[in-house]
Amino acid sequence: MTQEEISTEIRRTPLFGALLDDQFARVMQGMHCHQLAKGERLFSQGEPVQSFYFLRRGLVKLFRTSPDGDEKVVELVSSGQIFAEALMFMGGDAAYPLHAESVDISEVLSFDAHAFVSLLRDSPETSFRMMATLSRRLHQFLNEIDSLSLRNATYRLVIYLLQQLPVNIAESTSIHLPATKNLIASKLSIQPETLSRILHRLRDRGLIEVQGNDIVLCDIHALRSMTDIDD
Amino acid sequence: MTQEEISTEIRRTPLFGALLDDQFARVMQGMHCHQLAKGERLFSQGEPVQSFYFLRRGLVKLFRTSPDGDEKVVELVSSGQIFAEALMFMGGDAAYPLHAESVDISEVLSFDAHAFVSLLRDSPETSFRMMATLSRRLHQFLNEIDSLSLRNATYRLVIYLLQQLPVNIAESTSIHLPATKNLIASKLSIQPETLSRILHRLRDRGLIEVQGNDIVLCDIHALRSMTDIDD
Repeated sequence: MTQEEISTEIRRTPLFGALLDDQFARVMQGMHCHQLAKGERLFSQGEPVQSFYFLRRGLVKLFRTSPDGDEKVVELVSSGQIFAEALMFMGGDAAYPLHAESVDISEVLSFDAHAFVSLLRDSPETSFRMMATLSRRLHQFLNEIDSLSLRNATYRLVIYLLQQLPVNIAESTSIHLPATKNLIASKLSIQPETLSRILHRLRDRGLIEVQGNDIVLCDIHALRSMTDIDD
Repeated sequence: MTQEEISTEIRRTPLFGALLDDQFARVMQGMHCHQLAKGERLFSQGEPVQSFYFLRRGLVKLFRTSPDGDEKVVELVSSGQIFAEALMFMGGDAAYPLHAESVDISEVLSFDAHAFVSLLRDSPETSFRMMATLSRRLHQFLNEIDSLSLRNATYRLVIYLLQQLPVNIAESTSIHLPATKNLIASKLSIQPETLSRILHRLRDRGLIEVQGNDIVLCDIHALRSMTDIDD
């Protein structure tokens, strides 16, 4: 790996993306690269926070051990992710609240937490850029969660609608919902507003028509293919 | 609504949760409450950034208009969410890059962006607490995205496994995967590592046994009920 490849990868994260070039160069001076074997410990619960990390390759689990020895995995870190960074903002004497262990052969970059914070302390503008990036990333994630939930809910609703069809119907046909939309939403574990959004979208795509509790399935073939995992 | 109810609601957001009590009180002094009708505009693309917002009730869409008049919805804001806050960190002369319009009857609280930023400028510790909270929230969202994707992928895989069964089999039986796990993963749009995680989890729950490309479905009833949206 070259220094340039590493720079490109970590510049994509909100923390490093907000740094100016000279700040970034300073942070890179305190970087160390760790090769971890499967099962190797990176840091332990209770140790003082010295570093935060970027997982370049592999898989790392962050976990707690309960008093009776049970392990509770709190997060699985995938490659390309920063971790243990929130702690450095907590002040001088913070301790890691979790253990970190490599699940797979991993390559981890560590950065000096104190140096990073003092760099931010010297430049409120950098903090502000970072907060802007973090905020935007939060909105992206919220959008992603929304669209994943919606896709999932759409899948369940379309299966439900097809189940209401008489057997061997292949053409456009109308079905009468056997319950109110709120009841159906609850049965499918979908928020009523989400159900309305999905029905609107299916209608906009010409797949259904909605008249009160009667729904015309205009294109059964297209609806079936939405639920078909084989194509 | 009482002042106290509002305080409790907005204190749950990363931005307000990081404020000390007296800072919070100062921010609340610049708060305004807006009741929006369906379709009412809150701000327009190109206007200078004066405020950021908290949606208390209703639904707000953030959207762009293309040169040929097409509307592109970038985000749907649900109640309980802060929006347009990233912009205040961008410096003095920022303009809203989007339109905001109420989709439903909405209640929106607005806060003075400049006052909020100058409060942070006076207190790096507050900025650090805010970055800590934003970082932690990002990790929560990543976890949530991970678990939503995993649930979705598990659903697809279990349906696929059940499809490999001969008709009318009700008891434990072994199936032979007709392709390598990597091919099946690709067919189901699942990352190979995710497929392995799911197989491990199903095995840990006693639902399947895996021997190379042979999979024993140990509890067909339980597997079927995982795909059954009716119960």
